[in-house]
Amino acid sequence: MTPLSPGSRIGILGGGQLGRMLAGSAAQLGFDVSILCPEADCPAARVAMDHRVAAYTDLDAVLDWARGCDVVTYEFENVPVTTAAHLIDHEIIVRPGAAALEVSQDRVAEKTFLNQCGIDTARFAEINTAEEIAAPIERFGGAAILKTRRDGYDGKGQVRLAAGDDYAEALRALGNAPSILEAMVPFSCEVSVIIARSAEGESICYDLPRNDHTNGILRRSVVPSQLDAEVEARACEAARKLADALDYVGVLALEFFVLENGDLLANEFAPRVHNSGHWTPEACATGQFEQHIRAIAGWPLGPVTRYHKAEMLNLLGDEIFAHSGVSATDGVLTLYGKRHPKPGRKMGHLVRRLD
Amino acid sequence: MTPLSPGSRIGILGGGQLGRMLAGSAAQLGFDVSILCPEADCPAARVAMDHRVAAYTDLDAVLDWARGCDVVTYEFENVPVTTAAHLIDHEIIVRPGAAALEVSQDRVAEKTFLNQCGIDTARFAEINTAEEIAAPIERFGGAAILKTRRDGYDGKGQVRLAAGDDYAEALRALGNAPSILEAMVPFSCEVSVIIARSAEGESICYDLPRNDHTNGILRRSVVPSQLDAEVEARACEAARKLADALDYVGVLALEFFVLENGDLLANEFAPRVHNSGHWTPEACATGQFEQHIRAIAGWPLGPVTRYHKAEMLNLLGDEIFAHSGVSATDGVLTLYGKRHPKPGRKMGHLVRRLD
Repeated sequence: MTPLSPGSRIGILGGGQLGRMLAGSAAQLGFDVSILCPEADCPAARVAMDHRVAAYTDLDAVLDWARGCDVVTYEFENVPVTTAAHLIDHEIIVRPGAAALEVSQDRVAEKTFLNQCGIDTARFAEINTAEEIAAPIERFGGAAILKTRRDGYDGKGQVRLAAGDDYAEALRALGNAPSILEAMVPFSCEVSVIIARSAEGESICYDLPRNDHTNGILRRSVVPSQLDAEVEARACEAARKLADALDYVGVLALEFFVLENGDLLANEFAPRVHNSGHWTPEACATGQFEQHIRAIAGWPLGPVTRYHKAEMLNLLGDEIFAHSGVSATDGVLTLYGKRHPKPGRKMGHLVRRLD
Repeated sequence: MTPLSPGSRIGILGGGQLGRMLAGSAAQLGFDVSILCPEADCPAARVAMDHRVAAYTDLDAVLDWARGCDVVTYEFENVPVTTAAHLIDHEIIVRPGAAALEVSQDRVAEKTFLNQCGIDTARFAEINTAEEIAAPIERFGGAAILKTRRDGYDGKGQVRLAAGDDYAEALRALGNAPSILEAMVPFSCEVSVIIARSAEGESICYDLPRNDHTNGILRRSVVPSQLDAEVEARACEAARKLADALDYVGVLALEFFVLENGDLLANEFAPRVHNSGHWTPEACATGQFEQHIRAIAGWPLGPVTRYHKAEMLNLLGDEIFAHSGVSATDGVLTLYGKRHPKPGRKMGHLVRRLD
């Protein structure tokens, strides 16, 4: 594909805040944006040229929409693989492709793929029945986390287990869904690699943010991570292997647990721009949203030079009201246009310079 | 008016690149945007939630549209004063108000108003017939510029005159429109003040850019201006007087000629965000587009701290093609989504760090 000209149309599957910020960057580069999502009033559609309301599983509608786009991307990892594959079968350019969805949607497939790439993860076992839990939990030292293989996010769909707990009850709490048991990791901190890979196969990593979670939800990312450069380099090398193995085009985030001794265990990856990279537009020469658009448009990547230290604070639920309508002296505010500030819901974020 | 809550709707009269960039900043602050303009496919509408296609003179249509908005602003100075006044008569909040339009649309009214505010301008004379030209041109030293009082922009609608030229011919070239004769100003450079004034009457000025024009079109703005701080302070003080006199709410740009001796002559003002302020989103804590939205939403202004030296280069006509699809190492690119890159047409701009 030759680089897209200004005025080309970028299709985004998904209508949330990531799509909204991608649409903003696409517009800045002179592209038109069309959103496909099932909701009639979604944050991304309100800043896009065009909006098709359809289920992701409505293959005819999605294909019809995609035919009007010059390239199609997605803003969340739960787009059905069959939908992406259907578009690709009909010669729609989908970036990133279907493989990244297929692998990232299933925690067992994801960790298996990471290990095959030579990237360490926590030990894990596939769980289909309560009887399958006892053996691995002993092997993992008597404590583990049981997670659904699919559809978990922000700490949902998981439960901590100790040896001797009622495993059947735990599995019922997850709806008896196909699950994964993961060894507990005594990590000293969590970091993520935000990597961009171009259509030419060139890749580039942002400085790693250190990420703080509360109740499974990201609260704060800070750069620099204060890890040794050698540790950061290993994390980037792992992300590069993963992106290459997926023949990935676009921005991808790979999350790591960092152990006391500097060892890295990959937790999961997201085949998309990522919450822990929300500081990049303010702090770097090229933000992650522009970078993703550049990559999928077949443009060369932009420089990721970081100009200053930064922290990104997520604003959950009604926390946004403390930052709207008031002075901007506490950082750059981004609100997502969500209608209902439910508790714990990601409603916006704040980026602060720390220099 | 209490500060607008996220999710409120901002109406923008005008659909060009300034509206497009305002819409982007409004979305970042969580607002919905509706555009009213006469063109079905305009740059701003493609990034807005809603678009009403109507003539600015269609008072019923404009009022009906405005009633769906929580505040109405404009992105260009040629919105009919009668339209703004009609909205205000019907209790629509229009920011900035009608006065700034009325004054800035007529070069004679504008210079008269500036002078009344104690702001010096080039000497000028109102011209309605060719016979009225000879006396002032002698008084101005034998050379002057004849401009239409209304509707000129980017160097259009003006002609240079020397004593003894065919004045009738010159006036015919301007369509015999009501005109103004302005004394030539032997300036050493041109600068502009980008000032923001809040609904509370608080105002703040960005560092002054020095502006280079070619054929009447802005090509480059650079900060800092390298003027003495005292000269910059005088320019800001003048802009503050003007904004106060207009009871202005929003961002306004006041252009100055700087003479060798440091004297300042105001040229014109624009009651809107301004091309010479396009470096502010990249270089400052709060960009001019966000600042305008904050002001009209009744929010406090953001800090205008400039973090680094910068230059802004306008990309005219097909110059954009040298910067799209290529590396981002030459600065931050913004394209306007205009369909036809006519020669001389402002199609985008580039912001470069000079530190």
